Amino acid sequence: MRVEIVEVGPRDGLQNEAVTVPTGVKVEFVRRLAAAGARRIEVTSFVRPDRVPQLADAEEVLAGVADLDVAVSALVFNERGLRRARAAAVAEVNLVLVATDSFSMRNQGAPVAAAVASSRRLAGQAHDAGLRVTLTVGAAWGCPFEGEVDPAQVLRIVEGVPDVDEVCVADTIGAGTPGRITSLLGAVRGVTDRPLRCHFHNTRNSGYANAYAAITAGAVALDASSGGIGGCPFAPRATGNIATEDLAWALGRDGYETGLSLPGLLDAAALVERTLGRQVPAQLGRTDPFPPGAGASSLGGTR
Amino acid sequence: MRVEIVEVGPRDGLQNEAVTVPTGVKVEFVRRLAAAGARRIEVTSFVRPDRVPQLADAEEVLAGVADLDVAVSALVFNERGLRRARAAAVAEVNLVLVATDSFSMRNQGAPVAAAVASSRRLAGQAHDAGLRVTLTVGAAWGCPFEGEVDPAQVLRIVEGVPDVDEVCVADTIGAGTPGRITSLLGAVRGVTDRPLRCHFHNTRNSGYANAYAAITAGAVALDASSGGIGGCPFAPRATGNIATEDLAWALGRDGYETGLSLPGLLDAAALVERTLGRQVPAQLGRTDPFPPGAGASSLGGTR
Repeated sequence: MRVEIVEVGPRDGLQNEAVTVPTGVKVEFVRRLAAAGARRIEVTSFVRPDRVPQLADAEEVLAGVADLDVAVSALVFNERGLRRARAAAVAEVNLVLVATDSFSMRNQGAPVAAAVASSRRLAGQAHDAGLRVTLTVGAAWGCPFEGEVDPAQVLRIVEGVPDVDEVCVADTIGAGTPGRITSLLGAVRGVTDRPLRCHFHNTRNSGYANAYAAITAGAVALDASSGGIGGCPFAPRATGNIATEDLAWALGRDGYETGLSLPGLLDAAALVERTLGRQVPAQLGRTDPFPPGAGASSLGGTR
Repeated sequence: MRVEIVEVGPRDGLQNEAVTVPTGVKVEFVRRLAAAGARRIEVTSFVRPDRVPQLADAEEVLAGVADLDVAVSALVFNERGLRRARAAAVAEVNLVLVATDSFSMRNQGAPVAAAVASSRRLAGQAHDAGLRVTLTVGAAWGCPFEGEVDPAQVLRIVEGVPDVDEVCVADTIGAGTPGRITSLLGAVRGVTDRPLRCHFHNTRNSGYANAYAAITAGAVALDASSGGIGGCPFAPRATGNIATEDLAWALGRDGYETGLSLPGLLDAAALVERTLGRQVPAQLGRTDPFPPGAGASSLGGTR
């Protein structure tokens, strides 16, 4: 069985880092990920540079990877962002909403209902422009400001932006657990027939268990970040995404096809680790690969 | 549904630590775990003090916790260990075998077949003495010396020591993944009718997903260590057990009953972290509890 891993390290991974990563390193990061077999990469976000300075070079990074045979996506929050995405010729725009009003005011500057209406318009405009459109519902399993999230809030957003090519349900702060993943995805399945993707953070060590629960519940794609880096500038103490290499290792051992090469992923993570100057949360890069040799060419090379 | 978490921090957690933990701190650690609701605690191991100096004070620690209303267990490898266990009045002895000859030579000083014969005798003697006896099969999903482990090697050990009260299947080096947990436990179920327990290390970030897979496959108990500390002195680069507090948090959110209190577990882990002088692998102690307040009394107190 195939599971598609969407690489979000360049965007969700880097956006919250204090170290300003040079544009050239970002380009090299994306190129290594592509070389490792990644075919969908969330490269950047069209946000205001003063709000997320780390991603101010969105256009430059995209230009640097334009020759790759990869489906490149970027986050878009408004019409200005959509214009930038079209000009940069990305293949896919990701419209991100969050499940609660408190978080939505901080993340989008508008309450949920207004953000839904805006995203519905954006989805139509993006489709008219020939772009693939995905919808992410963030804070679906818990909000850093309001605590527990009623599943009905998630369903209202999914129903409110129906004209999308894929729905991603995101556990922005790592509050989800496998039983809750199963039940919410079942409910989401009841209100949309779009392919389901999931996005997990490993804040409380439940991220990988959640990923398996999501696959079992019918998700066909999972976000992950190289090295397990990541966070959210507007969600206090959100920690890293689940790590691409650790997820790909586990899925591979269980017979799932991801199309990813472990040595290649370790090469990409080594670049991130060196650039950030700290140990990344992923475990595979700092232990023996298993079975011996699975990641050897990388471990013996760049690390 | 109830899931029993067996606390192994005082033994598996501490035995590989370079810091020699004072006996009084070990006693306080066990007492905090009991106060947090732990009802089965693997306190120590009756091994040669020159091989595992950290556990040389087995009798003193056990004497210090003898008044607790807790089922205390200890590892036993030979008749001398069994005599020490009887003298110390532990309720349960844990006989540990490992699945491969290479590892068995290092861990028990004998190949698997000889270790099985020895354990069978020990199990009989322990039962005759009125002790509860559990059998752990280590390196069941991978060996640090031989790599992949044939499930038949695990089954032979389980069948070779039939007279036990519980069988624990252990992923000593964190090589297991959920699909492999499910299939091996199914095979083990075919050769024993004893209750099944599992023991996972989070070496490659699959430990918590494995725990959920084990429960789904019929395991009724899971080992975990406070703070996620742990390793194995004879298994290179084995890293920590899954953390009791992170596991209990996830299971609790999914409606499983563990009988454990998160604030109490965080108090115990805080003691370990302070004693070891380094950040422990568990995540719950360094993020916000979720929902807010779930671990508040501890976080506001000792940390």
